[in-house]
Order: sequence, then structure tokens, then C-alpha cells
Amino acid sequence: MSMQIPQRIVVAPSGFKESLDAAGVARAIAAGVRRVIPGVQVDEFPVPDGGEGTAEALATATGGTLVPARVTGPVGDEVLAHWARLGGAAVGTAVVEMATAGGLRLVPRDRRDPGATTTYGVGQLIDAALDDGATRIIVGCGDSGTSDGGAGALQALGARILDRDGAEIPHGGRHLRDAVHLDLAGLHPRIGEVEIILACNVHNVLCGPRGVARVFGPQKGASPADVEELSDALDVWADLLERQTPHGGLMDVRTGAGTGASGGLGAGLAAVLGARLAPRFEVLLDGDLLPASLDDLMAAADLVITAEGAIDFQTPRGKVPAEVALRARIAGVPVLGIAGSLGEGAPAVHDIGIAAIASILTVPMQLEHAVEQGEELLRDAAERSMRLVLLGAAMSARPAA
Amino acid sequence: MSMQIPQRIVVAPSGFKESLDAAGVARAIAAGVRRVIPGVQVDEFPVPDGGEGTAEALATATGGTLVPARVTGPVGDEVLAHWARLGGAAVGTAVVEMATAGGLRLVPRDRRDPGATTTYGVGQLIDAALDDGATRIIVGCGDSGTSDGGAGALQALGARILDRDGAEIPHGGRHLRDAVHLDLAGLHPRIGEVEIILACNVHNVLCGPRGVARVFGPQKGASPADVEELSDALDVWADLLERQTPHGGLMDVRTGAGTGASGGLGAGLAAVLGARLAPRFEVLLDGDLLPASLDDLMAAADLVITAEGAIDFQTPRGKVPAEVALRARIAGVPVLGIAGSLGEGAPAVHDIGIAAIASILTVPMQLEHAVEQGEELLRDAAERSMRLVLLGAAMSARPAA
Repeated sequence: MSMQIPQRIVVAPSGFKESLDAAGVARAIAAGVRRVIPGVQVDEFPVPDGGEGTAEALATATGGTLVPARVTGPVGDEVLAHWARLGGAAVGTAVVEMATAGGLRLVPRDRRDPGATTTYGVGQLIDAALDDGATRIIVGCGDSGTSDGGAGALQALGARILDRDGAEIPHGGRHLRDAVHLDLAGLHPRIGEVEIILACNVHNVLCGPRGVARVFGPQKGASPADVEELSDALDVWADLLERQTPHGGLMDVRTGAGTGASGGLGAGLAAVLGARLAPRFEVLLDGDLLPASLDDLMAAADLVITAEGAIDFQTPRGKVPAEVALRARIAGVPVLGIAGSLGEGAPAVHDIGIAAIASILTVPMQLEHAVEQGEELLRDAAERSMRLVLLGAAMSARPAA
Repeated sequence: MSMQIPQRIVVAPSGFKESLDAAGVARAIAAGVRRVIPGVQVDEFPVPDGGEGTAEALATATGGTLVPARVTGPVGDEVLAHWARLGGAAVGTAVVEMATAGGLRLVPRDRRDPGATTTYGVGQLIDAALDDGATRIIVGCGDSGTSDGGAGALQALGARILDRDGAEIPHGGRHLRDAVHLDLAGLHPRIGEVEIILACNVHNVLCGPRGVARVFGPQKGASPADVEELSDALDVWADLLERQTPHGGLMDVRTGAGTGASGGLGAGLAAVLGARLAPRFEVLLDGDLLPASLDDLMAAADLVITAEGAIDFQTPRGKVPAEVALRARIAGVPVLGIAGSLGEGAPAVHDIGIAAIASILTVPMQLEHAVEQGEELLRDAAERSMRLVLLGAAMSARPAA
């Protein structure tokens, strides 16, 4: 009986927030694997999740470019954001990563007030992509710091949202309580010519007990009173979207799948622009965006390694490793998960098909050191994990004792 | 091709200082392994290394007892120490763990002065074992906080060490510079009837550039000047041992193997009492002390798991995992090493036959938390490691892609 050493490994990680993007994580893991198995074929497949790094990842994967743009950030200050002009077979497609213009990271901790933040900059990026001639615009919705129902983005695209006195309402979701009229006459002239797709977590909805104000308000900095105020304002906004938009009456604005994406950006762009709200991995992995198919790579592999900054009880709820595990199960290939930290409930990932997990930590250290040394720690963790896998493979090849 | 799951695993760890003794470490690892492989046979073999926990480990393994004793500690304060009266096939054998009476842990940080500490309490424990009728006394030499050449222990056993005025010299290695005469008339009457064996690191020698003053003085708290003073004093002591003792003239007191064990306790007991200085694992693992033989257990196992508080560049230099790996190689069984922390140079252990290593750490944390949660972290780390091993075993059983 001869030992089977893995010959072909797919590395399909998420990024590690504030440490390494998904491409960097994939590269570090691949380097660790190669240390242990010389000559192994490692396919690096950083998994875009619609949040931070998505535009760059898709631009890189397709040979496209990133287009920088100065826009209004979530708290009103100007920020340097970017969108991606894809290349290869995806020419004509633009990727707008909302996190670069309205991400939670752009909201200083002492100014976390989800009733006040705006998606105006996201609209400016879409506007730039329209001006550039894009025929399809994909909006990545992860890591948002806003809860304005997409109102700001629509304003940037030429919509006017007016109060009872006919005045434009100010930025911030809480002001939507005063919105009574929507004037769409000034929308960008190319808006009807493009396909707009939001890559979103379809579990997020605009209104009700599972609506964005209640689910995400507190983590974006809202007090209980703020949550109620914002929830009421978004109800008003939902009324307006249902009554005064081309698509609002044809959809479930309040609790339709993905209407709550990016604090309600989903509802606003779907109702006003006819944007499609699609499951993020379906858009980002199954479309024609990427030159290689994760599923095809997996089908030819002996092992898949995924990774995330933290693996914990939330991981099975639609995070990158969960999606990778789902696809790997279909491909019939085992999955190993590497984490920056293994938190409460991490072993639950075994139930969704991740066979084994490993931590990158080697010595007692503070989070900031782990973040700083992320690349080296990941590489070493991949090496250690592969040595354990090879130990098992070698043991399996021994005659029974 | 069917997958071979390990059916029989030997867990042979060291203790984790300040967290869990070797038995506790073995128990935690075994629990983690059983979580992953129900029905597996796990042989727990906590490895005594001659340091802290050795007496208790051997008493437990042989069905013996621990005998408490109040003795003079290394800095002169009374300490509660113990020695072991072994049971089973080892009845008649006493184990004196020097660390309980003269260990570094008993020296407060603000009183670390290796020229001042004494092995007097170690002699008191040997004296108690002699009074008890032991026919063989094994002295475990690890984790010492002393550098008195065994002078204190000999004084406790009835020897008189005199200066030029015929006065007893005080406790502490630095006073050996004044020693000119050794009076052995008052030694314990049973001393000639017993076999005394020191389980020691044979690389430690009394004098010269690799002598105890230079190698261990600094880590026991000596300044460069202290080191020289102590080194000179131990040279004087070596002269005396060579000229005025029954065995000193027949051995290499200064640089013989193990003469530097426990700060020179080896040289003193060998020269005066004829104690044998033996490699610690040969004494503790290969003698007739333990009811089970580690080598026999390994020969029947599919996998050996060892562990140490820290695995780093020092591990290959005779630490427990190195000894376990050496024996496992002879038995032809693969070794996995689990560590509280993986320090600088840890991968060097692959060169001595440890196939794979794993860390117990899961999230960024301080050392004190890792120490507090040692048991749970070890159990979880063993589980994770075994899952990786099983992943490899399963992969090896798949048809090649």
C-alpha cells in the first residue's frame, strides 16, 4: 500500500481583515504548503465575498484595472475610493465595492451613528462607471457602514428626495422619516442601458423585526432609541419606494431577499433602478467574471484549504469557508480551514463539511502582533497543517499494527 | 484501499510548567483524541524528566506514596518538600526530587543569587529516605535553583566542611572558596548500604568553560562578577573532592558526565557517597521503576503524541519530546508534538523525527490565560490535530485524482 501525497491543492480563502487581503492569504498558505510538498500544484483562488477587497480581487483575476475616485464618504468627508473596470472575458463589466465608499471602516469609532451615514459615495462610483460606458455594474455589498436605504446613492445618481416643503432631505437614514416625494427625472441618462446586479447576503431585509435597523443598527453604533427612530424612518422610505418608483410596486421592498443589503442599498437600487439582488457567491463565483471556476478547480483537487480571520459560530452562516465547504462537498474533496483565531463554537464548522481546523497562533501574543505578522503566521500554520495531514497519510499507508 | 484509522496511540508528554503536570497533560490530550476516534486505545505515559513532578509521577505509576517533609529550602527558609516511597516492583526505592527542596521555583525572583543557595534540604530528604530504610535512592536533578556543588546536601547528611580555622563554612557555593577540610566521620550510618543514583542531564559538568557557574549562573541570577567568583569557589571545592573523598580520586570530578547536575550536586554526591551519575531517561524509563515500558507501548502503537510547554530550538537538546522521538524512531512509529507555545526554531524538531507539531493557542491571549486554560486548550488542540491526521488518512485512502 503506497502513501498518497496530495498532488493538487486549491487554496480558497477569505481575506483577514486589517491584516492581509484574500490574495495575500492565498499566497501565504500556498507558500507554506510548498515547503512541505515540493512540486505540488497549488491553485490560489482568493474568494471575493462582496466586501473589502472584492473590486481589487476581480480586477486582478480578469486582468482589469482599478479606477480611483474621490467621493463623499459615509460621514460626509471626502474619501479616496475606487471601482474596477474588469478585463478579459468580462470587459464591459464594472465592479463597485460599496465598502470603499461607504464601508464601516470609513466611519471613525467616535462617529458611529447609522442614522447619519450616507451611501452618496457609492452612487458617485456607479455614476463614474456609467460615464465610463460600463454595460454591467456589479455592486459588492459587504462591510457597509450605512443604513440609508440607498437614498444617498440615488441622490448621487440624480434622484431628488423631497420633504413636505419640497426641500431635499439631508444625508442619513434618520431623515427619511420626512421624505414624501421622489423625483427621478434627473437620473443618469445611461441608467436604463445597464444591468445592475447587487452581490448581497440575501438574508438581509429592509424592514420588520429582522430589518437592517434592528439587526445591524447596534453594531453600527445605534442606541435602542436610535434603532427605533431609524426603523420608523426606513418604513417611511419603504412606503415611498413602493408607491413612487418604477419597480417598487412589483417587488417586496420591505422583506424581499437582499433588500437590506448594505443598510437598505438593496431596496433602493432595486426599486428605483431595477437592480437585481442576487446571492453574492452566485454572482461572484458562478457568473462569467472569473477566468477559472472554483468548482472546476476543486473537482481536480485532492484537498481544499480555506481560511478566514476568525472561525467561530458565525462561520457556518454564509461566510466564505462555509461556501467553500458547500462546493467542496459537491466536488467530493476534503476541506481544511485555517483561522487567525478559533473562537467560540468553531467546531461547528465540522458539521458543514470542514474536516479539520487549525490556528495560526504559535505563542501567547496580542491581536495587533498577530495582525502584523499575519503572513508569516499563515505560512507557518499551513506548513504545520500539511505536516499533520501527511502524517495521517503516512500512517494510513502503514500496515496495521 | 481502505482508510487506516489509528487504533492505538501512546501519549507521552512532559509537564507544562505552572499549568499542568505531565499526568494532567497526558489526560487532556487523551480526552481530545477520544473525541475524534471513539474506541481508540490511548496509553497515557506521562514522562518523568527528573525535574518537577518526577516524584509524584513515579509514586503514582508504581502505586507508591509521597512522604512530606519540612526542610531548609534553597534560600534558607523552611519549605514543605516531599520524597516518594515507590510501590509495586520498585518497593525499597525512594525518589528524591531535588526541585521540591532546592528548585529554582523556591528562590524568589528578588533573591536570585546562585552563590548563596543551598542543597541542604535535598540532603535532608535523602536523610529521611535513609531513615525510612530505602535500599535505593534515585535523585531527580532537574529544575534546580542551586550551585553549591552538593555541599549543603552533604552537610545535611552529616559531613562537615571546614575553613582554615576549623569552622563550618556557611551555606552557599561562594563560601566553598574557603573550604580546606572535609570531615566525613559523621555521615549517616546507612550511607554505605544504599545505592544512590542521580538521574541527570549528563551534559552538565562542574568546572571549566562549560561548568555550572558559567552555563547556569546567569539564568539563576548571577552577574558576570558573581559567575567568576562562583566558578573559582567550585574549583576549590573540586580540589577538595578529589583529595579528601572516597571516590573523588577515581573519577573526573571537574568535567565528568553529570558532575554539574543540579549545580554540582552530581559531583558532591558522586565523590563523597559514590552515587552513580546516570542519564536521566535511562534511569527513569529503562530501569525497573515503571510497571509499563514506554518502548513496549510504542512498539504496539500506530502513533505517539508528545508535548511540552514550549517547543523551540532547545527541544532537540535532550528535552522530553526529543527522547520520545528517539525511542519512537527505533519503534518505527510516527510522532506528533503538541506545544503550549511554538517558539523560535521549533521546526528543528522535524530533524529529530517529530513529523508534525501543533500549538494549543486559538485566539490572541496572554500567557497567564493560556496557563489557566491549559487543560481545555490541550484537549482541543489534540482534537484538532487528530482531525488533520484523519483528513490525511482519508485522503490517502481516496483514489488518486
